Amino acid sequence: MPTSFDYAAHLKSAIRTVPDWPQPGVMFRDITPLLQTPRTFRLLIDVFVHRYMDADVDLIAGLDARGFIIGSVLAYELNLGFVPIRKKGKLPFTTVAEEYELEYGNATVEMHTDACRAGDRVVLVDDLVATGGTMMAGYKLLQKLGAEVVEAAAIIELPELKGGELIRTAGLPLYTVCSFDGE
Amino acid sequence: MPTSFDYAAHLKSAIRTVPDWPQPGVMFRDITPLLQTPRTFRLLIDVFVHRYMDADVDLIAGLDARGFIIGSVLAYELNLGFVPIRKKGKLPFTTVAEEYELEYGNATVEMHTDACRAGDRVVLVDDLVATGGTMMAGYKLLQKLGAEVVEAAAIIELPELKGGELIRTAGLPLYTVCSFDGE
Repeated sequence: MPTSFDYAAHLKSAIRTVPDWPQPGVMFRDITPLLQTPRTFRLLIDVFVHRYMDADVDLIAGLDARGFIIGSVLAYELNLGFVPIRKKGKLPFTTVAEEYELEYGNATVEMHTDACRAGDRVVLVDDLVATGGTMMAGYKLLQKLGAEVVEAAAIIELPELKGGELIRTAGLPLYTVCSFDGE
Repeated sequence: MPTSFDYAAHLKSAIRTVPDWPQPGVMFRDITPLLQTPRTFRLLIDVFVHRYMDADVDLIAGLDARGFIIGSVLAYELNLGFVPIRKKGKLPFTTVAEEYELEYGNATVEMHTDACRAGDRVVLVDDLVATGGTMMAGYKLLQKLGAEVVEAAAIIELPELKGGELIRTAGLPLYTVCSFDGE
């Protein structure tokens, strides 16, 4: 085993770029190869586990749907609960909602009102930060319920789309494993 | 600690029933309280881990989106890869698709063609089996790619809706933690 290991580069190399999807000109970053290979999936999760294992965190919130894949494992490994933040119309109980802008039109995310308590320290997880709209909407929902969002975490950041800048400027620390910048 | 423990009853008691959602007459079984409490979430996952830890399994497939929450942790704990089976239009690479009937209209699930290899032994995971339509569609997708589905697994079965019967009659073993039958 080597004495040092660039795990971020290794994980990044397992992400597949699909050009022109979902529309011409977009380079879609596909994490499914990273998830389906046992070694890279385990390494990916372990990177997040090591980051938060000594942190003062009460709860993991994951964004619908790829955020569930990382967030739920992280919650289990840290012996914490997991809270799904879902697209509109998926949660059956009383919810708080937050609308946000997409490139064309709007979307809404929701969270159960009893999903966390005021003062809970939460890590908010998604797979990718592009424009930052979804992550910011999740952040606002958690704040509405009085939670303290310790950090937002994702696998990939796309710096060109300035979502990371938006999130950090709003006062929310953001951790991402790797970034794709005009490549 | 008691010398025996009815874990299924304990987990079932953490599931919230929301009446008349998403429509009048439906008793919706809401797993979010089960997920957000660290002890019940960990116990739930551990039940699945213990069931499959000595089984000959190569891959965990999870159904969009609540199936991701259980399936991904199970994959991590068993040192396996995780494959998402997604609703139509969410996967960027070449896919196989399977349409199935809902109460009103149809839905389609998709899987990447390179998500598994012929002969792979797969556990297929979702949160709930009602009519069994989604689980059967996932089963057919995996079969199209030549995988051997070892077992379907879910938290909840609703025997009245006969999905469990449909799945088992099709030759796919089904494991569920608890069931709600006219209660």
